Amino acid sequence: MKPWAGRFEKEPEKKVEEFVASISFDERLYKEDIKGSIAWAQALARAKVISEEEARKITQGLEEIKKEIDKGKFPFDIADEDIHMAIERALIEKIGAVGGKLHTGRSRNDQVATDLRMYLKKEIKAVNGLLNNLCQTIIEVAEKNVDIIMPGYTHLQVAQPVLFSHYIMAYFWMFKRDFDRMVSCFKKMDFMPLGSAAFAGTTCPINREFLAKELGFNYISDNSVDAVSDRDFILHFLSQSSILMVHLSRLAEELIIWSTQEFSFVELDDAYTTGSSIMPQKKNPDVAELIRGKAGRIFGNLMAMLSTMKGLPLSYHRDMQEDKGGLFDTIDTLKACLDLMSGILSTMKINVEAMKRALEKSFVNATDAADYLVRKGVPFREAHKIVGEMVKHCSKFNLPLEKLDLEVWKRFSFHFEEDVLEYIKIKNCLNRRDSYGSTAPKRVEEQLKRAKAILKRQKEWLS
Amino acid sequence: MKPWAGRFEKEPEKKVEEFVASISFDERLYKEDIKGSIAWAQALARAKVISEEEARKITQGLEEIKKEIDKGKFPFDIADEDIHMAIERALIEKIGAVGGKLHTGRSRNDQVATDLRMYLKKEIKAVNGLLNNLCQTIIEVAEKNVDIIMPGYTHLQVAQPVLFSHYIMAYFWMFKRDFDRMVSCFKKMDFMPLGSAAFAGTTCPINREFLAKELGFNYISDNSVDAVSDRDFILHFLSQSSILMVHLSRLAEELIIWSTQEFSFVELDDAYTTGSSIMPQKKNPDVAELIRGKAGRIFGNLMAMLSTMKGLPLSYHRDMQEDKGGLFDTIDTLKACLDLMSGILSTMKINVEAMKRALEKSFVNATDAADYLVRKGVPFREAHKIVGEMVKHCSKFNLPLEKLDLEVWKRFSFHFEEDVLEYIKIKNCLNRRDSYGSTAPKRVEEQLKRAKAILKRQKEWLS
Amino acid sequence: MKPWAGRFEKEPEKKVEEFVASISFDERLYKEDIKGSIAWAQALARAKVISEEEARKITQGLEEIKKEIDKGKFPFDIADEDIHMAIERALIEKIGAVGGKLHTGRSRNDQVATDLRMYLKKEIKAVNGLLNNLCQTIIEVAEKNVDIIMPGYTHLQVAQPVLFSHYIMAYFWMFKRDFDRMVSCFKKMDFMPLGSAAFAGTTCPINREFLAKELGFNYISDNSVDAVSDRDFILHFLSQSSILMVHLSRLAEELIIWSTQEFSFVELDDAYTTGSSIMPQKKNPDVAELIRGKAGRIFGNLMAMLSTMKGLPLSYHRDMQEDKGGLFDTIDTLKACLDLMSGILSTMKINVEAMKRALEKSFVNATDAADYLVRKGVPFREAHKIVGEMVKHCSKFNLPLEKLDLEVWKRFSFHFEEDVLEYIKIKNCLNRRDSYGSTAPKRVEEQLKRAKAILKRQKEWLS
Amino acid sequence: MKPWAGRFEKEPEKKVEEFVASISFDERLYKEDIKGSIAWAQALARAKVISEEEARKITQGLEEIKKEIDKGKFPFDIADEDIHMAIERALIEKIGAVGGKLHTGRSRNDQVATDLRMYLKKEIKAVNGLLNNLCQTIIEVAEKNVDIIMPGYTHLQVAQPVLFSHYIMAYFWMFKRDFDRMVSCFKKMDFMPLGSAAFAGTTCPINREFLAKELGFNYISDNSVDAVSDRDFILHFLSQSSILMVHLSRLAEELIIWSTQEFSFVELDDAYTTGSSIMPQKKNPDVAELIRGKAGRIFGNLMAMLSTMKGLPLSYHRDMQEDKGGLFDTIDTLKACLDLMSGILSTMKINVEAMKRALEKSFVNATDAADYLVRKGVPFREAHKIVGEMVKHCSKFNLPLEKLDLEVWKRFSFHFEEDVLEYIKIKNCLNRRDSYGSTAPKRVEEQLKRAKAILKRQKEWLS
Repeated sequence: MKPWAGRFEKEPEKKVEEFVASISFDERLYKEDIKGSIAWAQALARAKVISEEEARKITQGLEEIKKEIDKGKFPFDIADEDIHMAIERALIEKIGAVGGKLHTGRSRNDQVATDLRMYLKKEIKAVNGLLNNLCQTIIEVAEKNVDIIMPGYTHLQVAQPVLFSHYIMAYFWMFKRDFDRMVSCFKKMDFMPLGSAAFAGTTCPINREFLAKELGFNYISDNSVDAVSDRDFILHFLSQSSILMVHLSRLAEELIIWSTQEFSFVELDDAYTTGSSIMPQKKNPDVAELIRGKAGRIFGNLMAMLSTMKGLPLSYHRDMQEDKGGLFDTIDTLKACLDLMSGILSTMKINVEAMKRALEKSFVNATDAADYLVRKGVPFREAHKIVGEMVKHCSKFNLPLEKLDLEVWKRFSFHFEEDVLEYIKIKNCLNRRDSYGSTAPKRVEEQLKRAKAILKRQKEWLS
Repeated sequence: MKPWAGRFEKEPEKKVEEFVASISFDERLYKEDIKGSIAWAQALARAKVISEEEARKITQGLEEIKKEIDKGKFPFDIADEDIHMAIERALIEKIGAVGGKLHTGRSRNDQVATDLRMYLKKEIKAVNGLLNNLCQTIIEVAEKNVDIIMPGYTHLQVAQPVLFSHYIMAYFWMFKRDFDRMVSCFKKMDFMPLGSAAFAGTTCPINREFLAKELGFNYISDNSVDAVSDRDFILHFLSQSSILMVHLSRLAEELIIWSTQEFSFVELDDAYTTGSSIMPQKKNPDVAELIRGKAGRIFGNLMAMLSTMKGLPLSYHRDMQEDKGGLFDTIDTLKACLDLMSGILSTMKINVEAMKRALEKSFVNATDAADYLVRKGVPFREAHKIVGEMVKHCSKFNLPLEKLDLEVWKRFSFHFEEDVLEYIKIKNCLNRRDSYGSTAPKRVEEQLKRAKAILKRQKEWLS
Repeated sequence: MKPWAGRFEKEPEKKVEEFVASISFDERLYKEDIKGSIAWAQALARAKVISEEEARKITQGLEEIKKEIDKGKFPFDIADEDIHMAIERALIEKIGAVGGKLHTGRSRNDQVATDLRMYLKKEIKAVNGLLNNLCQTIIEVAEKNVDIIMPGYTHLQVAQPVLFSHYIMAYFWMFKRDFDRMVSCFKKMDFMPLGSAAFAGTTCPINREFLAKELGFNYISDNSVDAVSDRDFILHFLSQSSILMVHLSRLAEELIIWSTQEFSFVELDDAYTTGSSIMPQKKNPDVAELIRGKAGRIFGNLMAMLSTMKGLPLSYHRDMQEDKGGLFDTIDTLKACLDLMSGILSTMKINVEAMKRALEKSFVNATDAADYLVRKGVPFREAHKIVGEMVKHCSKFNLPLEKLDLEVWKRFSFHFEEDVLEYIKIKNCLNRRDSYGSTAPKRVEEQLKRAKAILKRQKEWLS
Repeated sequence: MKPWAGRFEKEPEKKVEEFVASISFDERLYKEDIKGSIAWAQALARAKVISEEEARKITQGLEEIKKEIDKGKFPFDIADEDIHMAIERALIEKIGAVGGKLHTGRSRNDQVATDLRMYLKKEIKAVNGLLNNLCQTIIEVAEKNVDIIMPGYTHLQVAQPVLFSHYIMAYFWMFKRDFDRMVSCFKKMDFMPLGSAAFAGTTCPINREFLAKELGFNYISDNSVDAVSDRDFILHFLSQSSILMVHLSRLAEELIIWSTQEFSFVELDDAYTTGSSIMPQKKNPDVAELIRGKAGRIFGNLMAMLSTMKGLPLSYHRDMQEDKGGLFDTIDTLKACLDLMSGILSTMKINVEAMKRALEKSFVNATDAADYLVRKGVPFREAHKIVGEMVKHCSKFNLPLEKLDLEVWKRFSFHFEEDVLEYIKIKNCLNRRDSYGSTAPKRVEEQLKRAKAILKRQKEWLS
């Protein structure tokens, strides 16, 4: 019989029971739920609502239940509706009627809001741990290949030369911001709803500061209605996760493109590729593809929750039970994707020759040729036009700029002199981009130092 | 060892294996996969690619495997990657090397595209069966309460009187259109990809018409690249499902509002409500709330798949494996929601008195008072203004229009005469709305007849 | 003063007026609105609600207003709230109080639902006209390049050879299905709400069949509440548009990748590319990129409308005014993208040499080498493994399969004989894929014939 | 002629020009663009790339252009492509070839990334100003109605009594968190990309710290590729905006429900409602409905941008131009909604009597009756059941708990005594909920004090 059966004439139908039950997915909150309940029992005892002895029994019962679940020996039943009910039912079976006192002054509304926050805080730490590993991997890859030059692209068209290390470090900064945003999300959810009861606040004179301390919260909620009604901490996490997945999907796309026969910039390790059931020669970047594809999945989880929460009056509505499925799926997906992306990066081989060939075929130094003219006093727009015409000319004859005779250069502009050929050497192009944050080798070295300092700070937060 | 291990130096890591495996969710395609494989074996035999004897052995092996899975005795293993590999591995174990011939001329690409279409066609039939039940339930509810008058709303403000039967029948027409859209979706996916192999077409001289007939397809795909690359049949289904969920969520919202103490228009059956763990008096419309909430979930599934498919070059990419999770979840959710909504409607009680009281408190006949003036030759905009002022007057004194003295009526317009009071009686208001599709009782009767004819046609499609 | 000012004490504030006004975007419905109003005036006259003379005056007034708007001389004012009010206000100014009779028995609720359907039906014709052009362009491109062989890809890894014409025709079939889905969407919205008034039906004895005929509708709505409440015709269109944009984005992505220096399979025409403000050599596929990017925009419009409609009780709510912005934006975007994609395809140059080079570098005939073994009786899985090992061997020495000595072939399997080299020639690989819908040249010719027949049918629908 | 025409044979077609142009919507960045350009000219002069005199001329020219745009006298032309080009073209027209030097060492890529950040930082301040006003309005409404008791709801079913002030303050805390999240978003985007040029960094020896200071940035970007490629600051803002809109939509929904005839808890001011074109009595909460509806619009903008950014390789792609439409629309929508919501709240009337009536009809004190038993030593679950049965009993006879004779109470549990009737008085129910953050009047007073302190801190941030 349901704990709330008093007012009802009928039991719910089996299929209704299944439809409303969340036990199949909220099961994973058991540690937080039990920890929360033990703290609650202690608070009730301190408030003299229950005796010390009763609190002790309850605590002991709960600890036994936790062990059973840990060991996979706990008999979950769809009739229990949710993890809170399952544990309470088991507690009463175990220690008798006194178990029924645990729920005094508490509601599932504040209970689940508390459990979810505790759980999510823990998982954000885990996600950030993996983000930090990924950041570290990127630094390592950059350092190992610090001098390799590759063509940089805009619109997937070769544009200017960059250091591969500089290019890959762009992702470091994205993931660093993701780390920061996760920290921010963590901090903003770090207040405890427990004590809000159904929504109007508890009638028990419990000490909420004590509870918060026990459960690792830095703050307590200021308004009991808000505390049980709001799910913005979940929306916040889902949206930061979506942004993170955008970054992962972009990196995955690069790896997929770079792994093509046509680019051949990298070779992914066998461990992160799979074969084809029909084509014996294939080596497919499946893991990267799935990471890219799963970005859509996370956006979907965010969209689902936004739509579900839209227009709900306060306080609790059953629609809000939908908060868990997408959240748990997002956490699992993020963790797997982050972990595997580190693996892909740390095992892939860079094909320096392919990058070099790509550089040679393109007009990657055209901007610098224009630059040369600017230094001779030609307005930039004019210089741009001159070099544009030179490129058009060279394209017809399939020549790189560096293969043109000085005479031909001069035909396009009398400002060009002997030294232009030195000027447009790729190495020099790189060295000239030496403002803060640019690709000049010494700037990249500075950047790597800053990145390593950040890594240290991230590790501090994690510990 | 993977069936594609030939070209590889290393086995994939365990965590990669888990990440790329779809066996945990595509398991449910086993019936379609086996049916497809049996047909394929027969086609190979007819094409003399394998012998009749080999085909017989393969068929028998597959049928045994099907029985094992039916009985839950089939040992699924994450290393099998997907249901296709799992079945093939088992087949080879069972009948030896000849099992390896089954995959001749076929690829997982055309295989999964075929399985998914077969599966989804079956499930659309199931969804439409439940939609049809819901349509029938609505007609029954309308017929049982055919004469009940309720206030109709715009902006959730009382507007004009309608028959409850007319109002609830609005949902019939929505679900009827959903049924039609599902039929349309069904027809548009009814072509068979099998024979497209990896994407360039099969080299085996198999008869695709024979295969299509065996597998219940009316058409075969015209282009092998398209056949394995496209997932628009899934996007089509997910978007029609989203529209259907919009309709369900709107109906759910009405039920939730009507169940409030303040409206009290309906009382939901105990079987479809739940209680509170803390408030003994509560009777919460949880099932309706969850149906409403799950609309967001389905939108999320659609959004996920749209994002995932966006910008993928042809032909197959591993991202496309993400097509299944959201699809299966959508099917399960739709079926549960449709079934439970029928249950809610067929068991709820209508509170005629509450509807009556609501009608009396409002100015539900104000439009008709304006109409009266129009019939006396007053331009509509003028009439609207006059009655607007009368309503303002009545609101101050908390009076319904019908309680005003004729003298007062005349003060607002000399066109009002004795017969206005008869004219604005609610029954008469209803009767006057008697154009095709309107709320006049005889029009609603006609409507119900048309609806029942549609029901018959829907049943024919289902059978 | 607002036409509904009677009941109100205060005028709305200016900023409220701006917030609720839709005139800035629903202006584009004026043709449909005026056409609808003229038909309504005639219907009122036939029903003797107004006189023939009044109907004539109204009609004439409306026609004058239409001309003024056509010429851009109509003074739109934010205070008019929406296009319906703007036209009615102008009508009364023009022909006096009789203009006020036009709104008799009608509501903005059925008026806007009718206007929108008329407008959208017209625009679907326009979209499908452009889709048909695109289909035709694809056929032309395929025919012009019917014999060109390119490497086909899965996972962006070279897989098997295909005819370029076959590959590009894959898009024909997608757009053909999009065309069909749009037709289906058109048909499902082809019923007229007019006569439903606010939601309960009109009290005027107008002939709805007459109205439907005048306004080009094949059906009339069956339930007045549904007729004004539902926006599934918009959701239907937005979701089909999203699927269409998925297809366009995929094609755009291919073109972007093919235009890279590394692939160089196509060169886009100058007219469809743009340059860089800083890099003189750049030729960027901006149009294709924007088409790809705008897919997200359309998904957003769909998601917006789904979220907005979710959980709205019947009948009209002001939230539904949000139906227009996203709809109009979607129509404009679709039309521009379809038109420009045709332009891109019809002007691009195919680089046969680059495709050839890519074919030579890859193991595009590995599947056929395995096939060869199968024909010698080796089970497919075994053959796959053998060739996989050959590929691994060749990769080390950077050799294509065709450069291996027969002796080496034999070392991998004694089944290989002299004729294997002929067997794996690319031309033969293509020819062997000759089941219905495959890439064998003669199959592609058949396919093109079928496609042209479809084009004819599409044109018939459009006319 | 385009500034990048050098390499091209053909001019773009008119329709292509329109398709790729962003000038119609990025026009609104002109202040930031000019400010950025003036700073850039100064930096170039300091770096001796241009002369002081040239910088002076450029600055003066730009200031004149700004004035022209301010006054609406600037001739925008679609051929200008975007605001950056439009201003540069005008500059060259105005001051001659020297104007062409402004673009030296800069790209539109870093230029637009800088403009957007400057613009968005300004607009976040504006949004937060309006958020702060809304917070203040809520406090004022709460203080003005501090003692009013209303029924609190879960599942839209009456649950427990709360102070109206407590209930409405729940929204204060939500908007307070939204304010904080916007601050966080502001801080995370507060770094300057300028100096990153196309993506590899600028070759000009400009001082980026100087530039940052001039343009009001606290930090400068660390990696030039990242600086031009990333749009996470926009995604961050759009997602926080979506969460904010969830909150606004929930409040809007409450107001709509409370304004129904059936609830009648509030009456919205005429200024924030509109009438009906057909029903003279209507007073519709259109503004609240549109706010609710526009939540969907913002979710759509977020979803659009997530989908668009997904899977884009670095660095700039034209798809990213799609960042502006949705962003600008979101800003405008947020500002209007926030402003109008403050207006609605500050002008609405609370209907104390209606709230009282609703309290009396319900079993709002049932939880406290159960509580009473708990204090007598009955386990909570047992107490819950007893009171559940009492409620079932009372429902049948349509009686509130307080009307039952003591005798009847005792029939349900002998623990009930005389004092139970005092215990369940609503006032006492409220007073007993006196833990931190609960609804007891003295706790609400404390809460209001804390809220006012927060308001002060918010104002400090804004100034």
